[in-house]
Amino acid sequence: MARGFSPVALAVRYGQRHERELRAARQVAKRAGVALHEISLRLPWLKSSSLVDRGQRLPDTPLSRIGRDGIPSTYVPARNSILLSIGISLADALGAEAVIYGANALDYSGYPDCRPEFIAAFSRAARLGTRRGKMRILAPLSRLDKRRIALLAARLRAPMELTWSCYQGGAHPCRSCDSCKLRAKGFEEAGLADPALS
Amino acid sequence: MARGFSPVALAVRYGQRHERELRAARQVAKRAGVALHEISLRLPWLKSSSLVDRGQRLPDTPLSRIGRDGIPSTYVPARNSILLSIGISLADALGAEAVIYGANALDYSGYPDCRPEFIAAFSRAARLGTRRGKMRILAPLSRLDKRRIALLAARLRAPMELTWSCYQGGAHPCRSCDSCKLRAKGFEEAGLADPALS
Repeated sequence: MARGFSPVALAVRYGQRHERELRAARQVAKRAGVALHEISLRLPWLKSSSLVDRGQRLPDTPLSRIGRDGIPSTYVPARNSILLSIGISLADALGAEAVIYGANALDYSGYPDCRPEFIAAFSRAARLGTRRGKMRILAPLSRLDKRRIALLAARLRAPMELTWSCYQGGAHPCRSCDSCKLRAKGFEEAGLADPALS
Repeated sequence: MARGFSPVALAVRYGQRHERELRAARQVAKRAGVALHEISLRLPWLKSSSLVDRGQRLPDTPLSRIGRDGIPSTYVPARNSILLSIGISLADALGAEAVIYGANALDYSGYPDCRPEFIAAFSRAARLGTRRGKMRILAPLSRLDKRRIALLAARLRAPMELTWSCYQGGAHPCRSCDSCKLRAKGFEEAGLADPALS
């Protein structure tokens, strides 16, 4: 908003273990004073991911999380393409010209749909496939490591205490899943305490 | 299948007036002996399209259907991006390496998400964003006019009597909407009768 955007927020329930993140999305949107569009998807085949199928064990070490093809079991097939498309649809319907995507390509878990090449290709498709020919995807966190993201959040006074990263859906972050570990590493390297843990 | 593919089919209910097309999809899939995955989406903002909002008048002449920006009112915001993403997700979950997209870029209604440039960009994003890095979008009808599509269907003995093009959701095609007119033109130029009208 400080940069002249008038954002709206989008949150999608797709069967994720950590449905808890939707509550976090509501709280963050409320704090920021932006409207939140909340959508539910039912795509049965997403059960192939350990992030959706509660019967699978969540990876808890970097080694175990890498499958034969270098992709962790928490990868949800083309999830980010679906989320981006829904965001582009909402933006196009509202007459907006950008979708802001929180993907991170440095301290992340090896998902193909977080890489800058993917984002660039999708942004091009979005521009070509929408009404005004001006749509683009912005991924401001894409090339920052988690240390720099933690520092940026502190500088912007982002309400990190309201945010949720944990892949488990418990009352508190589990501190052992890959996502908790990457988050903890970022705060630690930044020399900051994670306000969500206090 | 004659070309060595083992296809599955995907149909999506997104609030279209012509929900009738889902029945057609079931019949075509059954005839072809392929599994059909049927999905429902609820995206409230799609009401901006006359193809979803039954309160809007459907365009019935080429002149009236073009909005100020050259896009017809039947354009559903980024619908095809969403459908393609869902298809890519299903394909990725199944270990398949292609999504077959029925878009047509010649005798069509001016939708940005049917153009070959869009399809090429989306195909690139699909390849970069999925597990094996091999996904692609095939659009075999993209550069055929409706005359050639009608001739191809006849040659392949495709069950055109089971297919549905009409934007209205009635018991029979309305013969006056843009989609009915484009279909009729194709059959007429091919010198063929449309078996769905007999």
